[in-house]
Amino acid sequence: MKVNLDYSNVVSSNIGAKHGIDINEIELLAEKGRQAAQSLEQKIENGTLGFYNLPSMHDIADEVLNYTASIKDRFTSYVHVGIGGSALGPIALQSSLRHTYYNNFQKPKMYFPDNVDPDWLAELIEQVDIKKTLFHIVSKSGGTAETAATLLYFMNFLKEQLGESFYKNLLFTTDPHKGLLNQIALENAIKCFRIPNNVGGRFSVLTPLGLVPAALAGADIKALLKGAEEMAVLCRRQDVMKNPAFIYAAIHTIYMSRGKNISVMMPYSNKLKDISDWYGQLWAESLGKRFDNQKNVIEVGQTPVKALGATDQHSQVQLYVEGPNDKVITFMEVENFKENVILKNHFPYIKDFNYLEGKTLGGLLNSEKKATEIALTNNERPNLTIKMSEVSPENIGATLFFFQAATAFAGELLNINAFDQPGVEEGKIATYALMGREGYDKKKKEIEEASSRKKEFIL
Amino acid sequence: MKVNLDYSNVVSSNIGAKHGIDINEIELLAEKGRQAAQSLEQKIENGTLGFYNLPSMHDIADEVLNYTASIKDRFTSYVHVGIGGSALGPIALQSSLRHTYYNNFQKPKMYFPDNVDPDWLAELIEQVDIKKTLFHIVSKSGGTAETAATLLYFMNFLKEQLGESFYKNLLFTTDPHKGLLNQIALENAIKCFRIPNNVGGRFSVLTPLGLVPAALAGADIKALLKGAEEMAVLCRRQDVMKNPAFIYAAIHTIYMSRGKNISVMMPYSNKLKDISDWYGQLWAESLGKRFDNQKNVIEVGQTPVKALGATDQHSQVQLYVEGPNDKVITFMEVENFKENVILKNHFPYIKDFNYLEGKTLGGLLNSEKKATEIALTNNERPNLTIKMSEVSPENIGATLFFFQAATAFAGELLNINAFDQPGVEEGKIATYALMGREGYDKKKKEIEEASSRKKEFIL
Repeated sequence: MKVNLDYSNVVSSNIGAKHGIDINEIELLAEKGRQAAQSLEQKIENGTLGFYNLPSMHDIADEVLNYTASIKDRFTSYVHVGIGGSALGPIALQSSLRHTYYNNFQKPKMYFPDNVDPDWLAELIEQVDIKKTLFHIVSKSGGTAETAATLLYFMNFLKEQLGESFYKNLLFTTDPHKGLLNQIALENAIKCFRIPNNVGGRFSVLTPLGLVPAALAGADIKALLKGAEEMAVLCRRQDVMKNPAFIYAAIHTIYMSRGKNISVMMPYSNKLKDISDWYGQLWAESLGKRFDNQKNVIEVGQTPVKALGATDQHSQVQLYVEGPNDKVITFMEVENFKENVILKNHFPYIKDFNYLEGKTLGGLLNSEKKATEIALTNNERPNLTIKMSEVSPENIGATLFFFQAATAFAGELLNINAFDQPGVEEGKIATYALMGREGYDKKKKEIEEASSRKKEFIL
Repeated sequence: MKVNLDYSNVVSSNIGAKHGIDINEIELLAEKGRQAAQSLEQKIENGTLGFYNLPSMHDIADEVLNYTASIKDRFTSYVHVGIGGSALGPIALQSSLRHTYYNNFQKPKMYFPDNVDPDWLAELIEQVDIKKTLFHIVSKSGGTAETAATLLYFMNFLKEQLGESFYKNLLFTTDPHKGLLNQIALENAIKCFRIPNNVGGRFSVLTPLGLVPAALAGADIKALLKGAEEMAVLCRRQDVMKNPAFIYAAIHTIYMSRGKNISVMMPYSNKLKDISDWYGQLWAESLGKRFDNQKNVIEVGQTPVKALGATDQHSQVQLYVEGPNDKVITFMEVENFKENVILKNHFPYIKDFNYLEGKTLGGLLNSEKKATEIALTNNERPNLTIKMSEVSPENIGATLFFFQAATAFAGELLNINAFDQPGVEEGKIATYALMGREGYDKKKKEIEEASSRKKEFIL
């Protein structure tokens, strides 16, 4: 595992006092950081904080590998039904660890329909042979509206084609005991994997919900866990000034207190693109909170922004360099690529192409990263770099674990609960009411009254 | 064309005085809006603002249709080489107007490699038969480093397989007269389409760079232009209180002056997902500016954030509802979907699924949108909705035009130049220096000195 965090470009001596951080400031926070580290250790010990233990659960990896080996030849397609934390991690693993065009030449073809867009799902159904498709339903409670509706939609086709044998094409990953999927599994003898009780959705990428599709697509999940396990050691250092998760959290919370409420995640690698999306949920849902632990209203949280280098230099960087200085930008950089073909100027009469002669695309990509870093730093825009030696299972496991631990630290430093999501409830209840679910009549009436009162401004 | 803008949920009477806007406030801005409308009309007339004229260029659409019809059978793959404005619009047209899995069963397969990630490009090359692949190179100047490098990379393979006939597999879209691609085209008799001088990259989606791939993939580009043309009429209304582009710009600039520096674009439709990405460049690069027109330092700009409903309800909405009230959220809603299959509760012993019985996925998706809108509005979070009757070429054309006109208005209201991107230059120069391009030695030395001075903070 070779992943490191370079935070030189947030330090005052490099980007100036106005937008920089004095190392003293971080050291002042280190006492709080040590308490945070202890508090996290206590939560790990008393079993309320489960994600730290996932990398060392080798028996579960074995079970996943046995299962995927046993079913691989039965299915030509794999359809992953889950949303939010049940989809973003699995998707990030797919795009970082398998061939971009895997579906063009490998089986089972992998699909991740993480939305209830009817036309999008209908187009997916056209692509698969239902009889040879494994539907992996992922939901802790089983009651997530989108996941339930997508399951019922696919069940129309499963029932039609397989009759009462439909259950042979289902796999569930859910709560160890409770929930609707367990009821269905019991009735129909459906294979279930488990999400431990103490692991929240956005911290669950290293449970079977991520491992099963990764293994099916041929990724080395043992190496993935090994990388995470090695990173876990660094992120549990009680000497927090040497703990990268604390340092990342400290820098971001200091900047939040100074009004920099945007966290840009900008990998210079297409393979890492969906990690930004996964980080987006992790950071937004964990840290975006109205109340602190003492129920004071604080309305805190950084808005995550996904970017991609070098592409977004031609889209976002103008704003990052010249617009409001309200962001902390994290680059992800890959040192070594597999493709090292040397560029040649095939148009020698175009002298302006000469500088590319003899170079590699990787050389260009990393020069662009360096150039953007320089432009931002010269303009006092704080930026950090997570550098990995290559895009490998070990390094991806380490990176994912690092962000999870950093999020946990940030929650402690902000004195909030990073592991709940109370703000999602209101929308859920309104959805149930609008869908006419039993028991939500009062809310429905409230909504109808509000709608009828509303003056319309429409053009 | 059926697209409208509902701004009820920014109005004080609906979301409260603290975070709402009085209609008076918009009316106060209307005088400035009328001047802006006139200023834009002047720029259209004197030929400096070209994108308004694109929808009525029917002859160019004919030329594109003739060209694509003539080459369609020669190629099994189409590779679009461009970055930023040369790629985001074309990609948005593809994902909104063609089948999601088009490449599984249609020809030519469409690829949009808009980055210089070497491994990603190498995986693409494995997928195509070079001899039967059309490479469409899009760059106004021809000198864009990433586009030039990608062209040279692909040229290795074209030369190897086609020798001196390589030019038969190239198509350029570039400046009418100037630039490196025109030099190459002249030497090799390569077909060229044009980006008018007065159309900037991020306003160019309706030029051949977007129309060629859209037409190749079977989209109705005439209907696309027709929708844009109809929207252009609304967006040129001098009675600005009835001009949706002015209203959108006014609302956003008022909120920017109140510190809401994030613009979230959240379609409830997977087909519209990449429009958020295209909007991201349009809004960020146009409005993210250090100086106003009088060269005062203002460091203005809203950071665009891409979201997707309902998916991101399980990722971002916790933050939007409970975190800092620093955002303006724009939903895109689709009224009618093609797929209207009725859900059935295939597990009658699960009573908690009963509320889905008899409903459609589209009904659920739009209830979720409504629910999120209610939750945000109840929490005084400003939000707007762009509603379209269906995802159709007319409506997509109208929507894209609307955002472009709104951006032009916002530039006028902010008193900035929305059509340049000076902040990108510094990074470009640093890239050239790092790549050892002739004439950039001084910058290279500067960079090396800065790097050697830098104290490292790495974990």
